Amino acid sequence: MEIGIIGATGYSGNVLYSLLKQHPQVTKINLYGHQQTNSTTSYLDEEIPSFQGEHLPLQAFNAEKIMAENDCLFFATPAGVAKQLATPLLAADFPIIDLSGDFRLKDPAEYSKWYQQPAASAEQLAKAEYGLCEFNDHPTAAYIANPGCYATATLLGLAPLIIEHLIELKSIVVDAKSGVSGAGKKLSASSHFSFINENAWLYKLNQHKHIPEILQQMQNWDDQVQAVQFSTTLIPITRGIMATIYAQLKPGITPKQIDDVYRKHYQTKPFVRWRSTELPMIKNVTGSNYCDLGYGYNPATNVITVVSVIDNLLKGAAGQAVQNFNLMWHFPETTGLPQLPIFP
Amino acid sequence: MEIGIIGATGYSGNVLYSLLKQHPQVTKINLYGHQQTNSTTSYLDEEIPSFQGEHLPLQAFNAEKIMAENDCLFFATPAGVAKQLATPLLAADFPIIDLSGDFRLKDPAEYSKWYQQPAASAEQLAKAEYGLCEFNDHPTAAYIANPGCYATATLLGLAPLIIEHLIELKSIVVDAKSGVSGAGKKLSASSHFSFINENAWLYKLNQHKHIPEILQQMQNWDDQVQAVQFSTTLIPITRGIMATIYAQLKPGITPKQIDDVYRKHYQTKPFVRWRSTELPMIKNVTGSNYCDLGYGYNPATNVITVVSVIDNLLKGAAGQAVQNFNLMWHFPETTGLPQLPIFP
Amino acid sequence: MEIGIIGATGYSGNVLYSLLKQHPQVTKINLYGHQQTNSTTSYLDEEIPSFQGEHLPLQAFNAEKIMAENDCLFFATPAGVAKQLATPLLAADFPIIDLSGDFRLKDPAEYSKWYQQPAASAEQLAKAEYGLCEFNDHPTAAYIANPGCYATATLLGLAPLIIEHLIELKSIVVDAKSGVSGAGKKLSASSHFSFINENAWLYKLNQHKHIPEILQQMQNWDDQVQAVQFSTTLIPITRGIMATIYAQLKPGITPKQIDDVYRKHYQTKPFVRWRSTELPMIKNVTGSNYCDLGYGYNPATNVITVVSVIDNLLKGAAGQAVQNFNLMWHFPETTGLPQLPIFP
Amino acid sequence: MEIGIIGATGYSGNVLYSLLKQHPQVTKINLYGHQQTNSTTSYLDEEIPSFQGEHLPLQAFNAEKIMAENDCLFFATPAGVAKQLATPLLAADFPIIDLSGDFRLKDPAEYSKWYQQPAASAEQLAKAEYGLCEFNDHPTAAYIANPGCYATATLLGLAPLIIEHLIELKSIVVDAKSGVSGAGKKLSASSHFSFINENAWLYKLNQHKHIPEILQQMQNWDDQVQAVQFSTTLIPITRGIMATIYAQLKPGITPKQIDDVYRKHYQTKPFVRWRSTELPMIKNVTGSNYCDLGYGYNPATNVITVVSVIDNLLKGAAGQAVQNFNLMWHFPETTGLPQLPIFP
Repeated sequence: MEIGIIGATGYSGNVLYSLLKQHPQVTKINLYGHQQTNSTTSYLDEEIPSFQGEHLPLQAFNAEKIMAENDCLFFATPAGVAKQLATPLLAADFPIIDLSGDFRLKDPAEYSKWYQQPAASAEQLAKAEYGLCEFNDHPTAAYIANPGCYATATLLGLAPLIIEHLIELKSIVVDAKSGVSGAGKKLSASSHFSFINENAWLYKLNQHKHIPEILQQMQNWDDQVQAVQFSTTLIPITRGIMATIYAQLKPGITPKQIDDVYRKHYQTKPFVRWRSTELPMIKNVTGSNYCDLGYGYNPATNVITVVSVIDNLLKGAAGQAVQNFNLMWHFPETTGLPQLPIFP
Repeated sequence: MEIGIIGATGYSGNVLYSLLKQHPQVTKINLYGHQQTNSTTSYLDEEIPSFQGEHLPLQAFNAEKIMAENDCLFFATPAGVAKQLATPLLAADFPIIDLSGDFRLKDPAEYSKWYQQPAASAEQLAKAEYGLCEFNDHPTAAYIANPGCYATATLLGLAPLIIEHLIELKSIVVDAKSGVSGAGKKLSASSHFSFINENAWLYKLNQHKHIPEILQQMQNWDDQVQAVQFSTTLIPITRGIMATIYAQLKPGITPKQIDDVYRKHYQTKPFVRWRSTELPMIKNVTGSNYCDLGYGYNPATNVITVVSVIDNLLKGAAGQAVQNFNLMWHFPETTGLPQLPIFP
Repeated sequence: MEIGIIGATGYSGNVLYSLLKQHPQVTKINLYGHQQTNSTTSYLDEEIPSFQGEHLPLQAFNAEKIMAENDCLFFATPAGVAKQLATPLLAADFPIIDLSGDFRLKDPAEYSKWYQQPAASAEQLAKAEYGLCEFNDHPTAAYIANPGCYATATLLGLAPLIIEHLIELKSIVVDAKSGVSGAGKKLSASSHFSFINENAWLYKLNQHKHIPEILQQMQNWDDQVQAVQFSTTLIPITRGIMATIYAQLKPGITPKQIDDVYRKHYQTKPFVRWRSTELPMIKNVTGSNYCDLGYGYNPATNVITVVSVIDNLLKGAAGQAVQNFNLMWHFPETTGLPQLPIFP
Repeated sequence: MEIGIIGATGYSGNVLYSLLKQHPQVTKINLYGHQQTNSTTSYLDEEIPSFQGEHLPLQAFNAEKIMAENDCLFFATPAGVAKQLATPLLAADFPIIDLSGDFRLKDPAEYSKWYQQPAASAEQLAKAEYGLCEFNDHPTAAYIANPGCYATATLLGLAPLIIEHLIELKSIVVDAKSGVSGAGKKLSASSHFSFINENAWLYKLNQHKHIPEILQQMQNWDDQVQAVQFSTTLIPITRGIMATIYAQLKPGITPKQIDDVYRKHYQTKPFVRWRSTELPMIKNVTGSNYCDLGYGYNPATNVITVVSVIDNLLKGAAGQAVQNFNLMWHFPETTGLPQLPIFP
């Protein structure tokens, strides 16, 4: 298959390129920029020195040409780009996996509110499918909206509790910690090494853009869900997310039931490792497509704590995108995905 | 004044020595080890190369000699040491500030349970005063039990909410993040650089030794308090604690009231900086004795989030110990304490 | 092929296991410990939580059984182990790739001096081949001594200069910087996070064990080499080595010649990327088997500076070991080796 | 005394403000910006949240007003600012300590070449004195040019060797490592956390602006000096510089002589700690005004290695500036300077 990537020079795009390059079903990768014309041609290895030798041109965006040259296209672009470029591709039902947030929310008003810009039309949004792989393993749409990194870690951690109605919905608190690569390579005072190093900063309290997709998915599972308490704290690491989830158990629910339910939901899922009462750490999954989960129960407070960790650029972005690609094309789900975390 | 320190070669002891050396009321510092006899004499600058030039001997422990030579004594020792050595000093009502956990809990059974070793006697424990300075600014005991680092950050963050009965007590969740120096210089797999770096690890879920002192103090403020949900996550920094505190407001309480109450409690406290809706980060306080506090309110969940940050070795250990020393001896509270955080 | 690994629970062993698991020619991996008997059996995923799911037993060491079960064996063991266990394997000319230093030096006296323990016999040492792949790409011995991490970075950086006699040998200065994983997972004061973080430490000045293998190889290239000035500085990263090499050019040698000579030596080598006057950084190679090289020339001092970077656990250990495995078994040199560095 | 600071919101300015605030001879600090007019007034604590409570206005620059209000002025400004603003202050011989590079070089052509902008006039430059305190402890000029951070570490490490003619001048190689704060708070791709973290980068090979001031001072000590080989490598720490200096000893010079000469030159200097054969690490000096020095000798190569470490924002900037202030005003040299490094 020939594959196109728009946005290969961003962090998620770098990782996506690396994965697809080793994917046994991919014979050629074509790279495109956001613009319809390029004044000069640049090359991947010039933009990303680590990729010296990968001398692929970054071509101008041209929907017709892209559809002619490729079997499938990935958007690894900042918010706002895919929705501007996708119209002809959507109209042709061309196979797309979109790592950005543009087509994750069904309600245009929610998108406008959280992303502070106009949304794609409701009709276009309806064509896209939210690709949380473990709960959407037979995708049918041509357009897959790949979930956000925080959303992936949080939803995989919460899913069995919500689906099985085990917790008091109003008691949920999510305290998520993230590495700096989650914010992309854009320069800002808060990405400066001297700012982040030896620091921790709760940078978004109930304000992160991934909140509406978390809520939308939770409501798909249980329409009683109304809100979620969600904070994101930057810690001085490059890669990784830990979502620490707190909730009170409903009366009569036991820790044993919790353990059983997670086991049931995830035992056939190759990329979720249920660790039961052993709490996972970020380094257990770095460099892999795994989401590791563990839990603890406090009888004094009746609170269950679930810890969910992922590599934000793999399971939280490019890895899950390749997983979606495999599901879309009916390849084995693990094809082309690195099996083992990097350690140390 | 002449001051003794037991345990100057540990992290808290290092910092304590640095502070006391610059304290204008301290004319001499004498250092002692835990043992009654030394086979050979070692010196501070041999143990701590950063302190080259501070050629003070680490003398054997001798209670009579210590009381004869000093006006006040600091224990900067691991759990279990102070309770073994303090008996003659307590009997003599000798002025002591103890940075360890040995005399913080009033109930010997609680100490035994959390510290996994026998406690000092209830009579001895009764002689000690829990020195959370902002709420104990006129100490009367000769023996001050300096609070733990997590306890300081958490209690200063929770105090106005508990004292003024503003929150649903059963809804409290504390998600605390800490640097590695909090665990001291002891070697362990989890202090290895390659383990901690690029990682985050929830290492103690409802199991940290500082929980009982947090509860004891909260119960002093409100006897309805029964439990607290408390987790501690190690992040790859050397110094600093962030306690993120979540709780649901009682019916009718407004965010404005929250702001007012914190302002009221802390406006005269030189080492607490209330930042209102600006959430503090760890680096705002590193190298200083400040505790910075900020908050946010989520109308969708009725949850207030309070962020409390300290330098665990200063406000969480040696800095608060000097603050207690100042209060005990009626020096201005800020004497000898560095005023400004290190930045960057 | 079935492959045995002795020492899979160390850092190099972890990485080696990950690589071999994805190697298309490897059908089964068998793991062994250093001891002839195990009181209880442990499993890889119990020892290395990141490898949850890799439930392979760590079997006792038994040379006969190992030779019967495997086609090739890797030692990923600390210094001193291979030389104790290898005798029957050497006698049988069993294919071995040894990541430790035990069989790198030809002179037993040099080994004893630098490793502070008895060496293997000169006869045994003579059977082993020093596997610096780019300069030993047709190995003939059954026993390959895989080079040390510092040696690999330094030798690949120096090789063209020495082989082509371009520099004043007495002027060579190597200032090497390394991450902490190079010292393995052993606990020590100098591997403590609070010690390494925000620090840099020249820990071995002309005392590193890799010096004699560097000299031995340089002398193979030019018997006029007598000594090398070599220092190793620990920096707060987990993975990576940068060897900064300084030397004065011989009279009449031009920078252009330097560029040409590196290009000539490395243009056909898949794992060495010559960057000419663009100096590489560690992150250009992390997670890959690449050695990246760049240079600069100072006309004011007549000094050429060459910068050589590798991932110490890949090109400096397990990656080069797999490269040696490929060469030994006549597989394409890049088989099973990750092609692209991790970025960011 | 009343003191003015221009540029208090940069990193060096932050530290300078902290130091002067605790200086017993300073009664008031006045802050100024670079501009002659401010459209709106900002305040120090608004610009630097860590300094909450330090509510000082950043006033517009006005030379007459500054001279009227202050006894001494510090420039903590980027290159190019002081030379533009200083003319009336120089004309009045107003006491100035300039942390920037504008007045360090005597030769305007050298400044233009290295700083890529026009220099102050030779007459103005002649009025300034290069304030390397340990070798200029009786300053006589009104205008002190505070040395650069790399220059301070390198010159203090080289001084005894050059002054006493102990080494072959052409053999000198300086391999300097620095933390990220040295480049200031300006945003750039190379200050991004995800770029620097887990990385090392030789960013300037014989191209750092501090080279000409190093050479100028070395030539003051020995007019035979012609050039210096000098590279700067960024490592993932916030603060600190290590300059590793290599040179061949002249015939007949012994290591013992080296030790004696360093001891002789520095034994009366409060801020230089000679550690002899114990090599210092960056963390030995962080947070202090110390420069620690150690050395080793390699008989196989006849090379002496000297390691020099400083905190780039203290001894390499604001700390040395206060030391110069003390020398200028005949206060004890250590007045107002923190005595002990931060550890851990």
